[in-house]
Order: sequence, then C-alpha cells, then structure tokens
Amino acid sequence: MSVTDTAQPTQRTQPSQPTRTVAFVAYPGLTLLDLVGPLQVFSALQSVRDGFRVVVMGRRLRVMETDTPLAVVPDSTFDYTMDPYAVVVPGGLVPTLAAMADRSLLDGIRRAAAHAEVIGSVCTGSLLLGAAGLLDGRRATTHWMFRDLLTSFGATPVAERWVEDGPYLTAAGVSAGIDMALHLVSRMTDEQTAREVQLLIEYDPQPPFGGIDWGTVDIESHAPLAQQFLTEVLTGHPDLLALLRR
Amino acid sequence: MSVTDTAQPTQRTQPSQPTRTVAFVAYPGLTLLDLVGPLQVFSALQSVRDGFRVVVMGRRLRVMETDTPLAVVPDSTFDYTMDPYAVVVPGGLVPTLAAMADRSLLDGIRRAAAHAEVIGSVCTGSLLLGAAGLLDGRRATTHWMFRDLLTSFGATPVAERWVEDGPYLTAAGVSAGIDMALHLVSRMTDEQTAREVQLLIEYDPQPPFGGIDWGTVDIESHAPLAQQFLTEVLTGHPDLLALLRR
Repeated sequence: MSVTDTAQPTQRTQPSQPTRTVAFVAYPGLTLLDLVGPLQVFSALQSVRDGFRVVVMGRRLRVMETDTPLAVVPDSTFDYTMDPYAVVVPGGLVPTLAAMADRSLLDGIRRAAAHAEVIGSVCTGSLLLGAAGLLDGRRATTHWMFRDLLTSFGATPVAERWVEDGPYLTAAGVSAGIDMALHLVSRMTDEQTAREVQLLIEYDPQPPFGGIDWGTVDIESHAPLAQQFLTEVLTGHPDLLALLRR
Repeated sequence: MSVTDTAQPTQRTQPSQPTRTVAFVAYPGLTLLDLVGPLQVFSALQSVRDGFRVVVMGRRLRVMETDTPLAVVPDSTFDYTMDPYAVVVPGGLVPTLAAMADRSLLDGIRRAAAHAEVIGSVCTGSLLLGAAGLLDGRRATTHWMFRDLLTSFGATPVAERWVEDGPYLTAAGVSAGIDMALHLVSRMTDEQTAREVQLLIEYDPQPPFGGIDWGTVDIESHAPLAQQFLTEVLTGHPDLLALLRR
C-alpha cells in the first residue's frame, strides 16, 4: 500500500492504459547515486500511481560493484526487459569511460532504446549513449568534467541541469538525475504527481553552502585529467581514443 | 586516483591523524536513497582526501532487498566494524517501522554508536536511534510524516533539514541525507573540501517546480496513516505500540 493511498484519494491511470516500464541500466563500477536518485523517484511514483513498473537491468542477475562500498544486484536483464517506455543509463568515472568500448553493453542499451519513448542518462551515462551512436545531431549534457567529449559523438554539449532533444533526456552530473527524474515524472503524468513524489522523498534541497558557484570552477583546467583517464582506460581501443582525443 | 589529485594540489590530512571510519547501517527494506545520498558524498570525500574510510555494515554480508528494485550487499558487518568515527542509520517505511522492534539490529546500532563521535540518521532512521534509547532528551528530526513519533522516545522533534545535538545529527526525509552529509564533511574537514565534494557530485539542485511549499502540505492529515502503518507492523509488540500510539 502506498503512503498516500489512504490519506487522500489519488489519481489512478485508466485500467486501459498499458503499464509503462522505466528501465534503469546497471553495469559494474557505476556511480551509485546516478542510478539511485532517479530510481528512488520512480519507485516512489510506482508506490502512489498504478500503471508504472520500475526495473533495473544488467547483463546478468549478478552482484556488481559500484563506486561506493555498496554492491548491487539488478532485478532484470537486457534480454528479459521487453520494450521499456523509458531507458535510463547512469554514469560513472573510469568504469563508465571504459564501458564506451564495451560492445555488449552498448548493444544492450541500443536494443533497450530501440522502441523507447524516452532514452535518458545521468552524468557520463550520456557518453555511453553517444558511444552507442544514439546522440548524433542531438543536444545533450553530462558531468561538467566530460561535457566537451559529447562533440566526439556528433552531439552538441549544453551546460544545463538536464537537456531534452526528441526522445533523449540527458542530465548533468550525479545528483542531477533527481531533478531530471522529477521532470520526467511530470511529463509522464502531471505536475501534481511530480510534486507528490517530491514530497515523499522530501526533496527540498538545502546545500549547506548554497548551490555551485560556477564562476569559480575552472572547467578547462580539468581537461588534461579527463584525457588522462581516457588514455588509461582506452589504451586497447585506439580508434575510440582517437575519436575522443582533442 | 582521485578526480582532483592531478588537476590541482589537494589538502591531505597529516599522516599522523588516524583514519576515520564512516559506517553506514544497512538492513532489509531500507529506503535506498536515504543510504546512497550520504554514502556517495563520503565516497567522493574518500576519493579526494586521505584519512577516511567508508563502509556499509549489515548484520551479515548478504544480499538484502531495498524499497526499490535494486538489491544491495554491504561490505562489512557490525561485528567487523571497529570503533567508527561516525555511524549513519538510513530510514525507510514499513521495514524501518518494524525494525524498531528488532533487538538484534538496535543492539548493533548501539554497539556501533558506543564510541562514535557522530551518530547520524536520515529520514526515519532517527526512529531506530530513538528505539535504541539514544535520543532521550535530544532535539532531532525525521521524515515529516513521522516527526511527532520522536516524542515517544523522549526526543524533541524539530522541523529542520538536519538537526545537531551533541553527537547526534539527524536529517529529514530521504534526500535530506545529501545536505546533512555535506554539512558533516565540512565539520570533519572544512568548507573548501565540502564544496569540492559538492562539485564532484554536481550537487546544484534545480527541482523542476522549486522546493516543497510546506504551506500546502497537510501534515496532520497523514497522522492516521502513520498510526495505521505502526499498528500493522508492531502488532506483536504491544509495549512499543502503546509507546508510539497517541
């Protein structure tokens, strides 16, 4: 039973509308909050509205490490998740950069996205969409440190919290997935529902020192580090490395 | 190697300072973002500064379900985590309320907290601190829907994003753990370090409809639902139920 069912009448979708599946992609080494921010938003949606199904799909139903001490286990696989309405790809650091050369993972993402209405990403997850050939000609965003790399895949990098272009919905780094997911909830339902979900997860952010002061962030100075990461992880993939090297 | 190590010199703690362990508590059915928000913050801290160790401790090193489709596996246990500097207890809905009667879990929390400098919680995690007898006479907070229950444990409920009282640091619902964790990072290091971690996780929140408009939230109307949850999950524990029933 949901939190709000009993307290107040909630809007239920018509029984005739088919259940929409929101499928999150999981792979070893991902940045956990990239995945869990939007996953919690959609799990909360599922608890207050009928007609939504949330899954986390990996290549196999196996324990995988993350970039935190917590390991995770998906509840579905690429092969088992049929025609999701939305696919969301989380990002990460070194393992995600390395995954740009992982043909099996990229193939799984492409297949999941083939009939999806929404193809989303958080953080460097958009680099996986790009490597899968999905962002050519699209406006997109990613973690600030890797934003320029999107051009290598034919995308136009945009410095916004989230960017929509057709079916593509890409979010900035890590925590931006929460904002993007609430936006997507409102798109798939309505503003009232998104606000209800926001209240459930008490998303009333108060960063102790305020938001990020971008005027003080020297993004360009981090470019050599980003290139160093790429060189290290893609040493066996000279074509991809050449594409990404500027 | 950390993200910022190469890009710019970072402050390293003195080698003479012992490593401080931040230990998160995991138990079946928890609300995943309660755990992962602050866990990601401290994992980022660990990646840019020496002298910190982050662990997630369960009773056993076993797969456990969460309130999302993602299952998780802790990397440590209560028995194995010696003298953590900080202990953080995440919350949840029905499983957390039921856990208020779980003597083994409460005993694990008490033992972990016995010598800790910081005893923290996110969301209804503070109800577990309360049930463990740790919040008597303290100011504390929790998820808005269960805030009044804190009085049952001798605590004074406070409607703030996070509340500090001595070693106790309790956060409001779910996403509040991110704000609380950044505050704790600044307390354990300095503001510059907290800002650096904030930049790494790109925590520059932009909720699509702004923050929560508390003037429109009828908290009192949810009280019967909260009591209904308690009655359902604590039916075998009449003493605890009587304590929590108003």
